[in-house]
Amino acid sequence: MLRVIINGYSGSMGKVLTKCVNEDSDLQLVCGTSRDELDVPFKTYHKMSEVEEDADVIIDFSHHSAIYDVLDYATKTKIPLVIATTGFNDEELGEIEKASAIIPIFHSSNMSLGVNVLVKLVKEAAKALNGFDIEIIEKHHNKKLDSPSGTAVMIANGIKDILPESECIYGRYGRSEKRKPTEVGIHAIRGGTIVGEHTTIFAGHDEVVEIKHTAQSKDIFAKGAIAAAKFLANKEAGYYNMNNMLD
Amino acid sequence: MLRVIINGYSGSMGKVLTKCVNEDSDLQLVCGTSRDELDVPFKTYHKMSEVEEDADVIIDFSHHSAIYDVLDYATKTKIPLVIATTGFNDEELGEIEKASAIIPIFHSSNMSLGVNVLVKLVKEAAKALNGFDIEIIEKHHNKKLDSPSGTAVMIANGIKDILPESECIYGRYGRSEKRKPTEVGIHAIRGGTIVGEHTTIFAGHDEVVEIKHTAQSKDIFAKGAIAAAKFLANKEAGYYNMNNMLD
Amino acid sequence: MLRVIINGYSGSMGKVLTKCVNEDSDLQLVCGTSRDELDVPFKTYHKMSEVEEDADVIIDFSHHSAIYDVLDYATKTKIPLVIATTGFNDEELGEIEKASAIIPIFHSSNMSLGVNVLVKLVKEAAKALNGFDIEIIEKHHNKKLDSPSGTAVMIANGIKDILPESECIYGRYGRSEKRKPTEVGIHAIRGGTIVGEHTTIFAGHDEVVEIKHTAQSKDIFAKGAIAAAKFLANKEAGYYNMNNMLD
Amino acid sequence: MLRVIINGYSGSMGKVLTKCVNEDSDLQLVCGTSRDELDVPFKTYHKMSEVEEDADVIIDFSHHSAIYDVLDYATKTKIPLVIATTGFNDEELGEIEKASAIIPIFHSSNMSLGVNVLVKLVKEAAKALNGFDIEIIEKHHNKKLDSPSGTAVMIANGIKDILPESECIYGRYGRSEKRKPTEVGIHAIRGGTIVGEHTTIFAGHDEVVEIKHTAQSKDIFAKGAIAAAKFLANKEAGYYNMNNMLD
Repeated sequence: MLRVIINGYSGSMGKVLTKCVNEDSDLQLVCGTSRDELDVPFKTYHKMSEVEEDADVIIDFSHHSAIYDVLDYATKTKIPLVIATTGFNDEELGEIEKASAIIPIFHSSNMSLGVNVLVKLVKEAAKALNGFDIEIIEKHHNKKLDSPSGTAVMIANGIKDILPESECIYGRYGRSEKRKPTEVGIHAIRGGTIVGEHTTIFAGHDEVVEIKHTAQSKDIFAKGAIAAAKFLANKEAGYYNMNNMLD
Repeated sequence: MLRVIINGYSGSMGKVLTKCVNEDSDLQLVCGTSRDELDVPFKTYHKMSEVEEDADVIIDFSHHSAIYDVLDYATKTKIPLVIATTGFNDEELGEIEKASAIIPIFHSSNMSLGVNVLVKLVKEAAKALNGFDIEIIEKHHNKKLDSPSGTAVMIANGIKDILPESECIYGRYGRSEKRKPTEVGIHAIRGGTIVGEHTTIFAGHDEVVEIKHTAQSKDIFAKGAIAAAKFLANKEAGYYNMNNMLD
Repeated sequence: MLRVIINGYSGSMGKVLTKCVNEDSDLQLVCGTSRDELDVPFKTYHKMSEVEEDADVIIDFSHHSAIYDVLDYATKTKIPLVIATTGFNDEELGEIEKASAIIPIFHSSNMSLGVNVLVKLVKEAAKALNGFDIEIIEKHHNKKLDSPSGTAVMIANGIKDILPESECIYGRYGRSEKRKPTEVGIHAIRGGTIVGEHTTIFAGHDEVVEIKHTAQSKDIFAKGAIAAAKFLANKEAGYYNMNNMLD
Repeated sequence: MLRVIINGYSGSMGKVLTKCVNEDSDLQLVCGTSRDELDVPFKTYHKMSEVEEDADVIIDFSHHSAIYDVLDYATKTKIPLVIATTGFNDEELGEIEKASAIIPIFHSSNMSLGVNVLVKLVKEAAKALNGFDIEIIEKHHNKKLDSPSGTAVMIANGIKDILPESECIYGRYGRSEKRKPTEVGIHAIRGGTIVGEHTTIFAGHDEVVEIKHTAQSKDIFAKGAIAAAKFLANKEAGYYNMNNMLD
């Protein structure tokens, strides 16, 4: 039984995480923190420094500015820490790295296991399918403001790691030139309530390889954080990310 | 056994048609026309006015400027005519219509049965799935110069017939607005040797309907012309198109 | 503003319907019925015969045995009735039909707009794509007990309406015969938490047409019932189903 | 410029290979062998032992019984050898291995680059997506006699390498049990002229990862053999396969 503290249980992802922790029979929710006073069936604090319980791992889905508080607490108590919060500045990132000399820290900007596997597979394919044309298609609901999606950019960056000369192209209307081999076309489909779909296409001579990820709900980010927590529980001090877990 | 004359057997589509006519045990290739002298195992003429054979149907895959010659011959001999040639000007179209008072004429700018069924289904869906967001994705080989494809435009026009206020959008990069309900996003994927794929997506609240056509070769245009020839063989004089055949 | 009564708001579909009615600004939830005493923010009764409010339409997601009660009330008050309940016996079906001489009644065993459109499109395609091979692939979560899904059967029956000689085939392992043209292969994929996906494939010579429906949640059945309610509001007495709404 | 000898240019794959070698500007077709006397625009012999030309690589698409002849020639002349022929018995396989101590030999039972990458990616995913349900869907033309396809079996074996307890399931009709986590469902879709499509689905909690390969023609096997030839040209003696090339 892994005893978990949730830092930031009242945000939109914090709520999903709380639900998922409660549903997982390997986990026990020890307590949580929230800036708001909420009526929840577990012990709750305003911030980590006030927590009195012992635990096996902390999962952080709070706010980047709260990182100093959680790092203080975690290094003092030697509790492993999963950081799923985003938006850190360089100073904050520096503090996280420093703390990872004392305790095991898992840090990823996208906690979905599937998305991380997708990026890993896309990089493998980009390496192996030399000379194939690469295109990325992402689909999201009609209320999404930005395009392309952050995950599509993450995929494109993964491709750039392998093929540094690749360059992203958005839309092709009215162009009357042939596709350049170094192009990576990115296409943003928007409609209905689609949660999130990312397909990378590798098109070669008479064959196509496609790698696709479909998200059905935000649960996948909470599940990924929980998987990271289980992975981290018996690790030595260090700075871990999804690649360590996937290897 | 349907006796067929091919007008224009030596062009890229004419060659495919010849092959498909020969493979079809319901058909007998009587003769063909070509501007070039080719070594072929059937009787061949320079133009329709020279043909001496009788036949049940003529299939025209020649050039729009040759239409007067073939209309003359077909109306004189009362042989039904399938016109698969494209690029007619208004005068030529007028002549075709006039001739259709005398003989049955089948005329379509896209002879693929599947593509025509696709457009029909998309129109049905656009009518029935009121309020759903519509997006079109087309995929073609990396040598295709134009985008979007003619078939994607044909689909978009079909949608406009049903939803006149719809407006096409190409690519979404860098926009930070919500999708408008009247948008029809069109996305041109290019890669490898993909022959042609067209998907129309209808995305609503928690459900998506997709209609997709995949072409594996140019045979489908020849096969469509042959199906039209069989359809036309016992028809009365008139101006027919794919919708007549599909109903 | 359409005033709605929900008969059976406390079942699993009743709850989803209540949520969807409340979210729809064109609708006003007048009251509901439930056999259980629940703490809900609207007037509630044990059965329809006790209801005192006036309304524009009743939506029934209760139990087939409660049909006499709701038909009594609806015919007496002349309120149009949407029946989304399933499992009626012949006697109950007879009563529904009788009542439809007095009031407009909408009755469907699958209220999803998308699924009904899917079946309609599949039938169109089966008619138009004569000689194409048809296969059905359905995907559902790993807890689903039955296979193939009811919707896959509904699609197969739709195909049989058009092609009476078609026969369903389930799995192909170890067979060493060629596919018969009359076969309709049905394939049940099971995995994870997939809500529901149905694809019908029409494969011909060098072209394939696919029609696919993806469900993301049970909301689609509630939304379909609401669409039916809006459709029914200003109709004459009669027995309506999804086809009437789609035409 | 890589000088190539084709052993067995007149078989169905040999013809495709000849076409692809001629189209590749990095390659020069030195000569070929065939048991039949064919009218071809390059020097041709009955068997390898008669060949008088020098070359950089031999590609073998002949018959397993001809392996002794080609191994003799290749080891004597020290020319690297790509073996794309299938159906070897243990003795023949032993000879191939022995010869690989003298010259570089590339040997694979499936020369398609894409299919081999697919299998590699599927194995990666099976390792990383622990606990996800795996299903394989393959689509082929309506004349294919066997099911499931050899490639589907190759994928299933790849999964078994990673998850030894996995067991294949074919079709699910009429079963009323829940899916077991160790099941790998394999589904054989047949229709039209589909060349070959293989999809592996990994379905987890609220997310799905799919890896798909689509073949458009037999060219991909020839192209794979050519890629192997280029890979092999400057290698030391040894026994190589697709994994060596992909790493």
